[in-house]
This record gives sequence, C-alpha cells and structure tokens, in this order.
Amino acid sequence: MRAVVAYDGTDYQGFQRQANGPTVQQALETALAQVTQEAITVLAAGRTDSGVHAVGQVIAFDTDWRHGIGDLLRAMNAVLPDDIAVQRLGKTAPSFHPRYDARSRRYRYTLYNAPLRCPLNRRYSLHVSTLLDRAAMEEAARSLVGEHDFAAFGQPPQGNVTVRRVLAAGWGGEPPRMTFEIEANAFLYRMVRSIVGTLLRVGRGEMSVEQFVEVLASRERSRAGQTAPPHGLCLMEVTY
Amino acid sequence: MRAVVAYDGTDYQGFQRQANGPTVQQALETALAQVTQEAITVLAAGRTDSGVHAVGQVIAFDTDWRHGIGDLLRAMNAVLPDDIAVQRLGKTAPSFHPRYDARSRRYRYTLYNAPLRCPLNRRYSLHVSTLLDRAAMEEAARSLVGEHDFAAFGQPPQGNVTVRRVLAAGWGGEPPRMTFEIEANAFLYRMVRSIVGTLLRVGRGEMSVEQFVEVLASRERSRAGQTAPPHGLCLMEVTY
Repeated sequence: MRAVVAYDGTDYQGFQRQANGPTVQQALETALAQVTQEAITVLAAGRTDSGVHAVGQVIAFDTDWRHGIGDLLRAMNAVLPDDIAVQRLGKTAPSFHPRYDARSRRYRYTLYNAPLRCPLNRRYSLHVSTLLDRAAMEEAARSLVGEHDFAAFGQPPQGNVTVRRVLAAGWGGEPPRMTFEIEANAFLYRMVRSIVGTLLRVGRGEMSVEQFVEVLASRERSRAGQTAPPHGLCLMEVTY
Repeated sequence: MRAVVAYDGTDYQGFQRQANGPTVQQALETALAQVTQEAITVLAAGRTDSGVHAVGQVIAFDTDWRHGIGDLLRAMNAVLPDDIAVQRLGKTAPSFHPRYDARSRRYRYTLYNAPLRCPLNRRYSLHVSTLLDRAAMEEAARSLVGEHDFAAFGQPPQGNVTVRRVLAAGWGGEPPRMTFEIEANAFLYRMVRSIVGTLLRVGRGEMSVEQFVEVLASRERSRAGQTAPPHGLCLMEVTY
C-alpha cells in the first residue's frame, strides 16, 4: 500500500522511529496494528526532523488487509491521533520504495514578517520582526536552481555526496506571510532550514546576494546562516 | 490605555476572569502587573467563550506608566505567553469603555470542508466532511442582514432584549476553506456559533433556505441547529 500522510509535527520527535519520544512512524504503525491486527513496518519518502510538518509525506507498507481500501483509510483516520491523518491511500507494486523511487521532493518554509508576533500564526510559521528585503531574497533564491554542491547548507544523510539538483526555488505568499518553496531531486540533512537561515541574513541586509552566491560556491558549512527553526517547515509533495 | 489583542483561545476558559482555569483576562492582568508593578483591571469589548480566538479584541486599562507607549507594548509582549500578543497600544480618554462604546463587532467562523480531516487545519477551523451547498448557505446568510429579533440564535448576556442589527453577513474563502463573516452592533450569547450550526444544516441539505428564514422569524431557540464548536470562531474587529 502507498499513502499520502499529513501531520502537525509539533509534538513529535520527527518521523523516524526512535527509542526516546513519540514519532510519526510509531503513531502510524500503532494505528495500523490496531486496525489490521498485524505487525506492520512503515517506510517513508522523507525522514522529517523533530517539529517539522507535512501535508504530502508518502509512506508504503505491506498488509494482508482483505476489505476495501476506503475502509482501511477510514479506519486508520479513526484511530490516528488528531495531529496525523491519511490523505490518500492506494495499492502499489511490492517493489515500490517511497524514498528510493522518489524523483523529487518539495518543501515550504513559512515566515510571518511583521513587527509584532501573532499568536494565530505561531505554530506553522517563523516570526521575523525585521522588515525583510524580499527582492534580494528572491534573487538569492534563484541562484539555488540547478545542480550544485550544497555542502555549505548541510550534510548527506548517508555517504558523502553533497551534490543535489534544485528544480525550483522562490518566494511567494501575501504579506505579512512569506513562503519559500524549494523542489529538488533530494535534500541534504537540514538543507532547507540552513538555506532559509542564510536567506534571512540576505533579507536583513547582513549579507548581499553576491555573498550568498559565494557561500553556496564555498561548500563551507561554517559560512551559512543559522539553521532556521523546524516549526516553519512543511514537506509539501513527493513526486515519482 | 486602549489595546488591540490577539490570542489563540485553545488553552483558555474564555476571556473573562473566573475562579476555575486560566483566562485571557488573567494572563493580561498578570503581564501588566509584572511590567508596571500595579494591580490593573482590564476591560474588554467582547467576552469570548472558552476556546474562541481573537485577532482584534479591544481592551482598556488604567496605568501610571511613565515611559513610552512603545516600551509598554514591547514589555507586555515579552512577558505574555506565546498564545497572547498585543497588536496595537495607544492612549484613550479615561471615559472609554471597550464594550459600551463599541459600534459594531465582526466575527469570522472558519470551516475546512473536505472529505478527510487535515491536521494542519484542525486548530482554527471546523472540519466538515460532507460537501456543503455553498450557494444555499450564502442565500440563508443574506437573510440575517438588518434588524431582527435573534432569540432563535441565542440569549442576551444581560437584560431580555434579543433584537440586534446585523450590518453584514456572508461566506468567503477559497475551497476547501469556507469563512463566514458577520458584523453586528452586538451579539447574543453564542449567537454566531448557533447561526453557523444552523447554516450547516442548510449546507447539508437538511434545512431549506425558506426553513432557515422561518427559524429566524420563529424566535424559538429549539428550532436552531446545534451550536458549532468554539475553535472555528475568531473575533476579528471591534469598531468605535
């Protein structure tokens, strides 16, 4: 089976099962065990970090479920906690692997750019009180598109290849909201949050667009800005 | 002083100070006491219910504060919890009363109208899985505009006058979001949530627009739909 899953990551220690603290994977496997009476392991397209959200996470799992797919979807959503929900469910080839088969992932990072913080925007966006230079941030974002060595912005989850292909990157959203969307074949560990932290330096006038391009070219992790906090980040879509 | 306050009402027992459980008023008065070292009582335009949010609540209070107004605003936001923030602050006549002087209040009720629930939309909107008849709900909403006896939709917070003047009422929002906005000189207790609950019956095809108009005219509380839950409701603006 293959499913698209949405979650509010606030109360989870990331997607991947671990010894300490609740994870999204554990919650999904617990729900599946309850519904199917089977011990099921869930694979995911992206191992989102602690506090990161998703509307388009893709998971895969095997089950002997004999009833309808719609019944399984409804049963899962009935037992899953409020902050996790299956959005789509379908059959897939047994060989399907949500991470290895993915062609690209798209993430969104949301800012709330206003002098004063707003309580109703605090959970899913980062409050930035300095008025940001959006044009400069857009120009810097465009320099990310293409195949680059992104070593300045993160480490590989495995191996040592730090080259990734960014298909699209840019800013959108109606003020005071600003949304950074980036699509790539794959991402380094904390790459989006590290890029956003560095783009924030550009937006605050602490770094020029040229310097941003130099940081990317330098491949030096120490030259990137502070990693932006997780609660502004959301995994939007995985493409196969 | 007069201030515009925003809050996420999820973890509060409404605005008004009470013996049991935290309230927004208590949190504001605690913050003011901490900042000014005075015992300050806060008055508000609308006594929002438990779980109801606000972006435009108006409060008033007296203080001997001798520093700048901007300093007081920043100091309050620094000590207030994450889920409450002052959005504007200014001086006002000592006779100003945020409730008695208000000419109108505007509320918004947000629905998430999609077959499956979405975790990232769960805190500030009501999930309705049945596809709603938006045109019928809009037609019914229009019948609310004008001066009517709204006894079918709520009880007065004091006295026994149930006549209110609705200045505007209608539906907006991009699907799957639906937002009901209503502005009136004043509201009965739970009036917006009772109206939304009844409009939902229209949207589900359980009640015709004509029957909705009859419910309003009947002045019978028992004929209204179920009161919609508080988490979809937000006090948007108070006009003076």
